[in-house]
Amino acid sequence: MQISELSDRSGLTVQTIKFYIREELLPKGAAASTTRSEYDDRHLERLRLIRALREVGDLPVAAIKRILTAVDDEKVGMHELFGTTQHAIGPHVLPPDDPHWRAAREDVDALIRELGWQVADKAPARNLLAQTFVALRRLGFPITLTDLRPYVKAAVTVAEHEIDRVTGDAPRSRTVHSMLVSTVLYEQVLTALHRLAQEDASARRYGDE
Amino acid sequence: MQISELSDRSGLTVQTIKFYIREELLPKGAAASTTRSEYDDRHLERLRLIRALREVGDLPVAAIKRILTAVDDEKVGMHELFGTTQHAIGPHVLPPDDPHWRAAREDVDALIRELGWQVADKAPARNLLAQTFVALRRLGFPITLTDLRPYVKAAVTVAEHEIDRVTGDAPRSRTVHSMLVSTVLYEQVLTALHRLAQEDASARRYGDE
Repeated sequence: MQISELSDRSGLTVQTIKFYIREELLPKGAAASTTRSEYDDRHLERLRLIRALREVGDLPVAAIKRILTAVDDEKVGMHELFGTTQHAIGPHVLPPDDPHWRAAREDVDALIRELGWQVADKAPARNLLAQTFVALRRLGFPITLTDLRPYVKAAVTVAEHEIDRVTGDAPRSRTVHSMLVSTVLYEQVLTALHRLAQEDASARRYGDE
Repeated sequence: MQISELSDRSGLTVQTIKFYIREELLPKGAAASTTRSEYDDRHLERLRLIRALREVGDLPVAAIKRILTAVDDEKVGMHELFGTTQHAIGPHVLPPDDPHWRAAREDVDALIRELGWQVADKAPARNLLAQTFVALRRLGFPITLTDLRPYVKAAVTVAEHEIDRVTGDAPRSRTVHSMLVSTVLYEQVLTALHRLAQEDASARRYGDE
């Protein structure tokens, strides 16, 4: 197909597609003449993935590029790809040199050890969680293990479901897409449903006041 | 206390504190002399709240201002404050005029009706969820009710726990802070734990490959 059809079917402007080619997020089309390139379904599929990561995941182009480089490298295994994706998504909270921060990070590390979770030391979610511990303590709402329990349980249930959805006998490219979708898009599903459930709980408790 | 002490204890620079006063996020101090203002613990508490909303919630100043205006208005009930907070947090996904989008939004509305949830039509989380439905379908991973069930269950469990934590006989200002903390900070707790649990599930499934 020509770039105009690729634009129609992906819902992205020709200008945006050319930008992604320049940024090496999308491979060039095959030269059909000196002025025209030919694109195929793989280009379309890639554009749809980029669009989802941009629009739903709100990821910067540089993060998407890091993810796609790992996706395209057949030597990269699923767990490594998962780590790359998490690292690209961020956010990378930079802990200040502060005793409250060190204590919170130790609490996070202890929690992960107690749960027996296999999580890399450099996983950005460790500091993301530590940041909330610091903020909650500062605000006079220190987090307790009892308070964390329902969150841990919810996270485990959802993660188990997700890993079951990803695995299967599909070819690598399909499994990889499925993993990206789980990590980036279903995180938004959980966030949106959490907010909706909070609103319902609030309406039932306070709605008549 | 003087502004320098307020700065030390809040961890924010004097410049930032003056900016928040100009932006009317923080009330002025009491005039102690022609050149010096006096601040109290309420200023400190407010600054800690602003800092948490900025740093953990990543909220823009305008959104924080809308939330704090509702917080300071004693006529605003808890459920209304919750709605104001959700609205200020966003994101406000603007649905394009597109049949896929309309279908996804109808799916979201039908799901909320079936669950019997009391959620305002204008709640931004409706379009946030619809956006993920559209993206998943476009990528060839259409979402099913079976797929949604564990997310719904997790969201309800966590939201119930949160509303129980917020309520009590505390004075309004404490209840209000607790609600904000639940909505903004515990959302990050859930996101961070979800990512950590995903990494663990991935390590156990793929770690040796």
